[in-house]
Amino acid sequence: MSMNGAESLVHTLVACGVDTCFANPGTSEMHFVAALDRVPGMRCVLGLFEGVVTGAADGYARMAGKPAVTLLHCGPGLANGLSNLHNARRATTMMVNCVGDQATWHRPFDAPLTADTEGWARGVSGWVRTASQAEQVGADAAAAVQAAFTSPGTIATLILPSDTCWNPGGVPATPLPVPPAPLVAPHIVQQIATLLRRGEPTMLVLATSALRAAPLADAHRIAAATGVKLWAPTGNGRIERGAGRYPIERVPYVIEAAVAALAGIKHVVLVGAPKPPVGFFGYPDKLSCLAPPDAVVHVLARPEHDLPAALAALADELGAPAAPPPPRGTRPEPARGAVNGDSFAASLAALLPENAIVADESVSFGRMTYSVTQNAAPHDWIAITGGAIGDGIPLATGAAVACPGRRVVNLEADGSAMYTIQGLWTQARENLDVTTIIFANHKYAILLGELANVGANPGRTALDMMDLRRPELDFVKMGESMGVAGGRAETMEQFNDLFAQSLGRRGPFLIELVM
Amino acid sequence: MSMNGAESLVHTLVACGVDTCFANPGTSEMHFVAALDRVPGMRCVLGLFEGVVTGAADGYARMAGKPAVTLLHCGPGLANGLSNLHNARRATTMMVNCVGDQATWHRPFDAPLTADTEGWARGVSGWVRTASQAEQVGADAAAAVQAAFTSPGTIATLILPSDTCWNPGGVPATPLPVPPAPLVAPHIVQQIATLLRRGEPTMLVLATSALRAAPLADAHRIAAATGVKLWAPTGNGRIERGAGRYPIERVPYVIEAAVAALAGIKHVVLVGAPKPPVGFFGYPDKLSCLAPPDAVVHVLARPEHDLPAALAALADELGAPAAPPPPRGTRPEPARGAVNGDSFAASLAALLPENAIVADESVSFGRMTYSVTQNAAPHDWIAITGGAIGDGIPLATGAAVACPGRRVVNLEADGSAMYTIQGLWTQARENLDVTTIIFANHKYAILLGELANVGANPGRTALDMMDLRRPELDFVKMGESMGVAGGRAETMEQFNDLFAQSLGRRGPFLIELVM
Repeated sequence: MSMNGAESLVHTLVACGVDTCFANPGTSEMHFVAALDRVPGMRCVLGLFEGVVTGAADGYARMAGKPAVTLLHCGPGLANGLSNLHNARRATTMMVNCVGDQATWHRPFDAPLTADTEGWARGVSGWVRTASQAEQVGADAAAAVQAAFTSPGTIATLILPSDTCWNPGGVPATPLPVPPAPLVAPHIVQQIATLLRRGEPTMLVLATSALRAAPLADAHRIAAATGVKLWAPTGNGRIERGAGRYPIERVPYVIEAAVAALAGIKHVVLVGAPKPPVGFFGYPDKLSCLAPPDAVVHVLARPEHDLPAALAALADELGAPAAPPPPRGTRPEPARGAVNGDSFAASLAALLPENAIVADESVSFGRMTYSVTQNAAPHDWIAITGGAIGDGIPLATGAAVACPGRRVVNLEADGSAMYTIQGLWTQARENLDVTTIIFANHKYAILLGELANVGANPGRTALDMMDLRRPELDFVKMGESMGVAGGRAETMEQFNDLFAQSLGRRGPFLIELVM
Repeated sequence: MSMNGAESLVHTLVACGVDTCFANPGTSEMHFVAALDRVPGMRCVLGLFEGVVTGAADGYARMAGKPAVTLLHCGPGLANGLSNLHNARRATTMMVNCVGDQATWHRPFDAPLTADTEGWARGVSGWVRTASQAEQVGADAAAAVQAAFTSPGTIATLILPSDTCWNPGGVPATPLPVPPAPLVAPHIVQQIATLLRRGEPTMLVLATSALRAAPLADAHRIAAATGVKLWAPTGNGRIERGAGRYPIERVPYVIEAAVAALAGIKHVVLVGAPKPPVGFFGYPDKLSCLAPPDAVVHVLARPEHDLPAALAALADELGAPAAPPPPRGTRPEPARGAVNGDSFAASLAALLPENAIVADESVSFGRMTYSVTQNAAPHDWIAITGGAIGDGIPLATGAAVACPGRRVVNLEADGSAMYTIQGLWTQARENLDVTTIIFANHKYAILLGELANVGANPGRTALDMMDLRRPELDFVKMGESMGVAGGRAETMEQFNDLFAQSLGRRGPFLIELVM
């Protein structure tokens, strides 16, 4: 069978189990697109902007446990997707980017779209390659998928000059073996066990795959046996939580709260986190590290290790008995009356359906939502990880593609929503079960706090730069303009009604929650 | 007077004549924002996404003839603005980017937002520097402005760790001298004159500042004296044109049309264009260069030369008399009936007000608009230059900020509009006189042509990727949701009415032109 490079690419991806493509194609990707018709097995989801595409691929992989492929148009198309690739990198998300580019022999002519595609890719990718000929594209794709899958997961970017796609001679490649996540050496486990037995104030920082239900149960075994405190970083790729599961608190975003929470800690033990907790930003006269300066940092497991195995081994080494059952909290009643952080958290905890996925880009407003929803029905919590806002709507979109039948609830700050608002259209097009809740405070509320944090004294011009009220954004109308129905809630009763409405229907729904 | 680094930065920018800031600030930029209150003279325009910010700064500089400053938040904020910086680079636009970043001592801790800020900046910037201390920030800013102004204009990116902004010791710098654009050496002018006198089929490729009214008049003197053909590249930063001005045709985008137009050319003389015309993309079995393969390339002037002086010198060297008056075409009547490329072009040419600015991101639909509007009232034509779509709404926004009192007419493809649709909000907020015309064909029409061009044979999946009809985007509603009034036109009569309506009012207006 003779095929072109693009066909060998799609064949190889499908053979490797990569069967979902988030795409915003251009001219240089037309053979890839055409190949989708000739090679069965690839679902293709269109985004109207590349930030939607890369963020959706991130949300998909977090929930599917395997990479999606993105299809991006040349350097500028990649550039538009970079900030959500930055977030995905911080979540150690598996992803395969296919970035079309000028034909090999056309690139030297510096045509208008020619840009530093490889250079831009490097800062977010663990693996970058530019294909050189059609005959190799299949092998390139297999190598990209292997890199993406290799623990802890990475972004693999394959740049495809258009002639490597349209030329004949394509050879589909068979999947390459994915090495298992390495096990932590027994002597490391013993060292950490010895440390924990000393009973000094110690925190475990659990990240990525340590935040699933089973390893969290082992972490609680360890905590019950030694008194160690358990923490997750502030933003995490995915946490399995809710009623009946073991809770995990996140290091607070606000630096004073974080420092207070970690006061007195003598040892920081990393379990998949690449570093001890650090402030999101530096502030005048404040330290970068959030644990006390004299705390000693230890590594139980690096991000690429088998984290569940490491926690199980540590619990066993400690001779820790089975953990006591998770604490049974009370699920709140839906709130009534005024909209505020507490009332919203109560209603969400009360009404969140079983097995929901919460995509959290609530930024300033939703900070109390996380703790209160520990008593909600079991759910996954996926959040912005790299601080590059504009991730929530895309994450929710990709998660819904990965998990048909599960309701995705997107907690979305209004300022952040406007970065990638086009994602709503993809939700409508694919009829995805996403409930988007826009926190419409009509300002960059987080920056008002940050102004104070950095000691700046805002005047009229500064305050004006935080104000999104002139003109007021009408998110219900905006959703409707892209095919997403919705409604506005100014009281919690209205919110409860709209939220229930959204759960009772298929497809996306948008709630503008006015505060 | 004691000031911090940020205040010295704003002082220096204003002293250098840079008095307009397009901003999407974050925490690390809070001292810059606060400084705007304490240092008079800087107008600050908020964008809801960085692609709006950088594209608006591009449109501003093209029309104002001086750089704006952008304010961007860390590496990811810069990344979101990269593709419109790519377009700006292709237009040799002057710009100063101020990119906030982690405090110098916080950066090593790799906090979540930390990214390869410098690396991402390099591909689009002619000048990149990371400030190291508050005492130097004023001098850094002066150097950035000098670089931006230096012919032919460049993007200067100054990365500002937040402590260089909040620390005391800021020293405002005085403006640095900007070297004049170099003159072309007389012997080069003589060589080109000798070439043109031979009378062989020759084209002049005029770019950037050669496309203003006065140098175009000199180019027409040269053409009248020698028979040389005059061409502009396909996408240009700014062309002064319309009735009573000397016309200039652009090299067609469609490769067959371009090759046909340049057939028989023996010599290509570059006047500010960095290269001879090349195809936007490579296609199977087609050449990259659009002029015949045996055409010889000559350089009258590089981009940085004084192009108007070079053309005047060449005309004088040739002893060319004053050019005959520009051709007097007939301004068409407004079209009636069905909406198509011809009818739209006629109506626009008929109704475009005196001294308008046309921001052209019409992509496939608007290709005939350019020639027909040569007979419209005098106007400026600014267009997407680097092929990275999502530039039109921002360009129009920035041009309107630069030119109060002039109507900006944005010709905008629907697919491209969705990249930076948030720009409409800035138009409403600043009450800018922009008429946005959305060409709502509800598809990526250009890609349907490109599919054929690359020999791909589209099936259902491929065609689905070009289709924006499920669900249909309602641009009128979308505009309203961001505070921009508008209407829908399905006939040319309706368009003519809405267009006239938009001219009779202040502030932005959106017309969804359905085809």
